[in-house]
Amino acid sequence: MKLIIEENYEDMSQVAANILLGKMLENKQRCNISITAGRTPRKVYEILVPQVKNKQYFDHVYYHNFDEIPLPKQKLGVTLTNLYNMYFQPANIKEEQIIPLNELNYPTHIDKIRKSGGLDLMLLGLGEDGHFCGNLPHAVKFEDEMVKVSKNATPDMEEILLEEVGNDESKLPQYYVTMGPNFVMETKRLVMIANGKEKAGAIKKLIEGSVTLDFPASILKLHPNFTLIIDEEAASFLA
Amino acid sequence: MKLIIEENYEDMSQVAANILLGKMLENKQRCNISITAGRTPRKVYEILVPQVKNKQYFDHVYYHNFDEIPLPKQKLGVTLTNLYNMYFQPANIKEEQIIPLNELNYPTHIDKIRKSGGLDLMLLGLGEDGHFCGNLPHAVKFEDEMVKVSKNATPDMEEILLEEVGNDESKLPQYYVTMGPNFVMETKRLVMIANGKEKAGAIKKLIEGSVTLDFPASILKLHPNFTLIIDEEAASFLA
Amino acid sequence: MKLIIEENYEDMSQVAANILLGKMLENKQRCNISITAGRTPRKVYEILVPQVKNKQYFDHVYYHNFDEIPLPKQKLGVTLTNLYNMYFQPANIKEEQIIPLNELNYPTHIDKIRKSGGLDLMLLGLGEDGHFCGNLPHAVKFEDEMVKVSKNATPDMEEILLEEVGNDESKLPQYYVTMGPNFVMETKRLVMIANGKEKAGAIKKLIEGSVTLDFPASILKLHPNFTLIIDEEAASFLA
Amino acid sequence: MKLIIEENYEDMSQVAANILLGKMLENKQRCNISITAGRTPRKVYEILVPQVKNKQYFDHVYYHNFDEIPLPKQKLGVTLTNLYNMYFQPANIKEEQIIPLNELNYPTHIDKIRKSGGLDLMLLGLGEDGHFCGNLPHAVKFEDEMVKVSKNATPDMEEILLEEVGNDESKLPQYYVTMGPNFVMETKRLVMIANGKEKAGAIKKLIEGSVTLDFPASILKLHPNFTLIIDEEAASFLA
Repeated sequence: MKLIIEENYEDMSQVAANILLGKMLENKQRCNISITAGRTPRKVYEILVPQVKNKQYFDHVYYHNFDEIPLPKQKLGVTLTNLYNMYFQPANIKEEQIIPLNELNYPTHIDKIRKSGGLDLMLLGLGEDGHFCGNLPHAVKFEDEMVKVSKNATPDMEEILLEEVGNDESKLPQYYVTMGPNFVMETKRLVMIANGKEKAGAIKKLIEGSVTLDFPASILKLHPNFTLIIDEEAASFLA
Repeated sequence: MKLIIEENYEDMSQVAANILLGKMLENKQRCNISITAGRTPRKVYEILVPQVKNKQYFDHVYYHNFDEIPLPKQKLGVTLTNLYNMYFQPANIKEEQIIPLNELNYPTHIDKIRKSGGLDLMLLGLGEDGHFCGNLPHAVKFEDEMVKVSKNATPDMEEILLEEVGNDESKLPQYYVTMGPNFVMETKRLVMIANGKEKAGAIKKLIEGSVTLDFPASILKLHPNFTLIIDEEAASFLA
Repeated sequence: MKLIIEENYEDMSQVAANILLGKMLENKQRCNISITAGRTPRKVYEILVPQVKNKQYFDHVYYHNFDEIPLPKQKLGVTLTNLYNMYFQPANIKEEQIIPLNELNYPTHIDKIRKSGGLDLMLLGLGEDGHFCGNLPHAVKFEDEMVKVSKNATPDMEEILLEEVGNDESKLPQYYVTMGPNFVMETKRLVMIANGKEKAGAIKKLIEGSVTLDFPASILKLHPNFTLIIDEEAASFLA
Repeated sequence: MKLIIEENYEDMSQVAANILLGKMLENKQRCNISITAGRTPRKVYEILVPQVKNKQYFDHVYYHNFDEIPLPKQKLGVTLTNLYNMYFQPANIKEEQIIPLNELNYPTHIDKIRKSGGLDLMLLGLGEDGHFCGNLPHAVKFEDEMVKVSKNATPDMEEILLEEVGNDESKLPQYYVTMGPNFVMETKRLVMIANGKEKAGAIKKLIEGSVTLDFPASILKLHPNFTLIIDEEAASFLA
């Protein structure tokens, strides 16, 4: 693991954007990436949008969704809706470059990615409970490649899912889908960002703690090319 | 360039087979290779066939044809016919893993390869005139990516093509297609084999001579990951 | 993880040798590998020796020892003595290409490897208890990079070490040193071999079981480029 | 070749900086890069300095000088003096991370780089005459790996060298040293920047012209991972 501590959220975001752009600017061959939704990457996408928008030389970059919470009667789930708003729409990414993950295609999603060369880079966020993608504590196993997680998978899963759909009971999904730890680890390069005091405890566990399913992101430390970028607040509990 | 001189044809072939197998045995992600027809690789394929035949763990390997001389009223041209006989048929390679190059698809062949991740490895032979794939002296330019070469491209091209179709005038093609030097150089790893006294002059030019279109293979020396494997006879003119 | 099941020990060994040779035959830049001692790789080295011996084009390959049990008053420990006998001596590998690990240099061993570009490939064996290198159950943690393991680390460690030194009590070491799981996982490509009925139980646990310190090799499944090569006997308990 | 056209000098510099940072931010293993002196990269270094200065996580990055014009009675030549002023000094790079090239070590410079894993990335500028590093038209051959070029190598070389030493005749060197095209091409990833109208003619030749020693940079088009970044002025003569 390579640890990068930057002074603040802006600098953290700039470093992550640099890594993404550096990879996307490589030769002409297909580049497969996965990017995260959520609050943390908002600034990363703000930096990326003007540098990516309408640039033909990024036509070889394909975005593979890594998790999804389905929404009733809607084509896009929670994750892709969020990514469209923050990045795909403002950056004017072509639809053919966006490969969704959903309740229909999840059994073949991984095979298709492997057949197109595998994932080159993944940008991840970190949950305070140690989750990455949809890999929540005890909802998945390290050896899982793709998982359909029921709303009953853990005692508090229903509450978590309800929050994800804006606490609208009518939208409560029966399950969600996510790449498991095993397939995330198959990515050639992993990048995680985390900022703010509320992440300081999670960062301490990730860096100083054991590898354990109680804190799923702990496994990422063992990836041969994993870069963790945090701000000083997120680093404030480190020994 | 990395030069490997082996005692004889068998050892040269074993080393080339080792490199091919080593690459094909890597992870589960799509592996794109290009292999050469002709007499030189016969033994390489003899070594490969029993190790590849009906092995499911090679299902992620795709074979992209790099040149083709069309034959009248036949689906396969000279190169693929030869490769089917020597390797694809005896190794029982599935048709979906073989991507032909022909007079119809040559304008899109390269784009499709790039969209599937680019070529990981190419096995090349060497002509006494310095050609590799269909890149004959003065028939192509170094900067060409894909070329349709007319039977009138050079003074002796018609004779060369006639020999390729068994000196049957009724089969004389109007042109052939080939990946140009520029796209061959885009391959991540290049391997060339050459054996026998009749190749000794060409090997001397390749290794000791200048980079020149008079001897197209001279450009390969400048590839960052090029391994040249020859036997002692082919090495006999080296300084 | 890529699983390769071969008919017998000879074929398993040939596949592993192919992967090693394929990597070692790449360009001219330093190639850093680590190889395993023990009974399993004996045939791999028999295949390698004639292909490697006195070949100048392998001078860029460096062998970094991954674990060592010190022997009293001897320069070489148990692992290197074994590797010298099976491979380094018969293959006539130059001393400058062999980087030992021992009680003196273990704190700087990893830093030196990283400064020379990192490990490109590691060949591993599998213990019936799930160990790889010196990573025995509960003697190390997944996040360890380099470990000095005391003879009192686990209840049966003294017995294990005694067996390693030929049950000669006068040679019983106080400790041994080993790359931990974390640094093994930093290797760009991992290859493991296992054969015979006595390994069938371990292989079943490795492939079908959970990632757990009870069976350290279970972590290797999560490496992005891990090839496991076994014979049919070792595969005989698989579902 | 991947061509990137940005609106202006600032954007061109930002893209180049992104690629450099993206590579340098990868894992912990030694990263070998070569960077160019001259006017063009000034802004790249301005962007890099605050992001690199005193950051311990860049301690694994080593800078290998690619050409040098010796100065009488001075330890540093023209290139390194320039790089120290623009980048090494303001970024506070440690001396152990800077590997000079000079009249003493040039015969072993390449071997040392290969033994430390080879060059990962090179940032190049483009001369109006098509030169890159010290590879001036007809002063070197494509197949050269390292060259000591005499001040009499070409008719106008003395004049060129005189300008490089500030037109001070007392400093006129007898020769300079440079990595040749062959070793530059051995780098894993090449990045070239060029801006301004005075480069428009050279860019047109590089992109649309033939591969020829009359314009040495033409060879770079054949590298499998070459990114050319220019501004709109430099692109203004393109078809």
